[in-house]
Amino acid sequence: MKAKYIEDFKVWEQEFKFSIPITVRFSETDMFGHLNNTVPFVYFEHARIAYLKEIGLMGDWMAQNGNNIPVVADLQCDYMKQVFFDEELNVYVKASSFGTSSVDIHYMGKNEKGDVVFTGRSAIVQIEKKTGKSIPWTDKEKSYFN
Amino acid sequence: MKAKYIEDFKVWEQEFKFSIPITVRFSETDMFGHLNNTVPFVYFEHARIAYLKEIGLMGDWMAQNGNNIPVVADLQCDYMKQVFFDEELNVYVKASSFGTSSVDIHYMGKNEKGDVVFTGRSAIVQIEKKTGKSIPWTDKEKSYFN
Amino acid sequence: MKAKYIEDFKVWEQEFKFSIPITVRFSETDMFGHLNNTVPFVYFEHARIAYLKEIGLMGDWMAQNGNNIPVVADLQCDYMKQVFFDEELNVYVKASSFGTSSVDIHYMGKNEKGDVVFTGRSAIVQIEKKTGKSIPWTDKEKSYFN
Amino acid sequence: MKAKYIEDFKVWEQEFKFSIPITVRFSETDMFGHLNNTVPFVYFEHARIAYLKEIGLMGDWMAQNGNNIPVVADLQCDYMKQVFFDEELNVYVKASSFGTSSVDIHYMGKNEKGDVVFTGRSAIVQIEKKTGKSIPWTDKEKSYFN
Repeated sequence: MKAKYIEDFKVWEQEFKFSIPITVRFSETDMFGHLNNTVPFVYFEHARIAYLKEIGLMGDWMAQNGNNIPVVADLQCDYMKQVFFDEELNVYVKASSFGTSSVDIHYMGKNEKGDVVFTGRSAIVQIEKKTGKSIPWTDKEKSYFN
Repeated sequence: MKAKYIEDFKVWEQEFKFSIPITVRFSETDMFGHLNNTVPFVYFEHARIAYLKEIGLMGDWMAQNGNNIPVVADLQCDYMKQVFFDEELNVYVKASSFGTSSVDIHYMGKNEKGDVVFTGRSAIVQIEKKTGKSIPWTDKEKSYFN
Repeated sequence: MKAKYIEDFKVWEQEFKFSIPITVRFSETDMFGHLNNTVPFVYFEHARIAYLKEIGLMGDWMAQNGNNIPVVADLQCDYMKQVFFDEELNVYVKASSFGTSSVDIHYMGKNEKGDVVFTGRSAIVQIEKKTGKSIPWTDKEKSYFN
Repeated sequence: MKAKYIEDFKVWEQEFKFSIPITVRFSETDMFGHLNNTVPFVYFEHARIAYLKEIGLMGDWMAQNGNNIPVVADLQCDYMKQVFFDEELNVYVKASSFGTSSVDIHYMGKNEKGDVVFTGRSAIVQIEKKTGKSIPWTDKEKSYFN
């Protein structure tokens, strides 16, 4: 069963261009014998930051000494298949759609067989660190996501 | 801004009857100086299990030697306010709506001032451990959630 | 088998005056069905900070705007008995011995039956945040630990 | 300052042959702005299992359907240098010395500059899963560690 944020799964799946490999750690399993449900969110954060570095936006945030920072407004994960210790996953990230000062980021985890094991999404909002106010994207910033 | 799974916030908030206290640990903060975004899901799991024990369903699952177990189909969290080290939160849990073999569980975190700091939800499905097939709720099981 | 930092276990055990209760979370277990080995260190940190608050030292560190901060020089844990999901532990903390600018903190975890499940220790050093240099204890600071 | 389990640092350092790369995750930092002290133990476990797979012992444990399993008797870490978000570490593992049914495993973390950032050790004991009794190493098992 696909999540509400996915319209056409095949199209959605093929739009991902960026991924990082992640090996499931022993400490990330739980007594049910599989990956604990809270861990994909750790993977999402790790993969999202790698993606933001890759497209150049992370560097911009750092260059301005952190005046503006990205904050996570919400996070969600849909579990498709069980994941086990020592599996080598690929966690994919893409920008899906834009608001004035926010962006919807989507995630997909695949195992070695190519099965999709979980999908997810989160809204990221750009805010001014000092005031907490949301900061609209510049055209330059938007262009990074293409 | 309220999440899509909340219709009337006041009504939604008042329906919670069960909560557990959780103190934010130092190791749960991150370099942004606040609670890391992945940690509320740890709180949700901890509070959900306490809730299922409280209503008696966890005991039933254990009594049948784990033939049927609850699995998490999806998880989501909406972040309302920043949470900091050493804050004493209350994490609330309630059952919101039922499917044949699933239940929608809702979550709400409040700080000491009574501010809602995050909300969340997840679908839990009862499955047979051996086959992985979903197992419809009995009337007795449904009654636990009232 | 007792750890090297414990001379007489009975004496050592009775010297603890401070403890906090901690319930083992589901996400802290691993696929071996018990508490993952890395988690007692999370408990130690949590209990140590509660202890430093209790004796008044944490307040002092905060009052001076964090000029001086405590850093952990080393950490160790000896595992005596397996710990399982949902056990309610008490984690004890005490100051064991002093150096010029350091203090040896000892830890003991007990389950509901009163069995010692793990013991531990760590050296904490007081340093100046800006320079990283170690800062000798004042007599007032030492007195907190008694 | 070197740890007690290291006699000659240069010799000790050069004996490591096995390592795995680990990138520091954002969720592994804390509000002090650096890697939380509890996380190197997660790295040690991850690296130790990779090492045991590499030398072939993990496969043996699995082949006998888990009759005998390795348990951790103790764990310790000495912190040499601060570690920060996004650093790419190498975590080294070696067997240091043997008991009848135990082995002392040593660890070393290095940053990209080649600085040693932390060192550690742990005793691992082979036990029979059913009885919990320690199981002496066979000559074949000992040979894996060379």
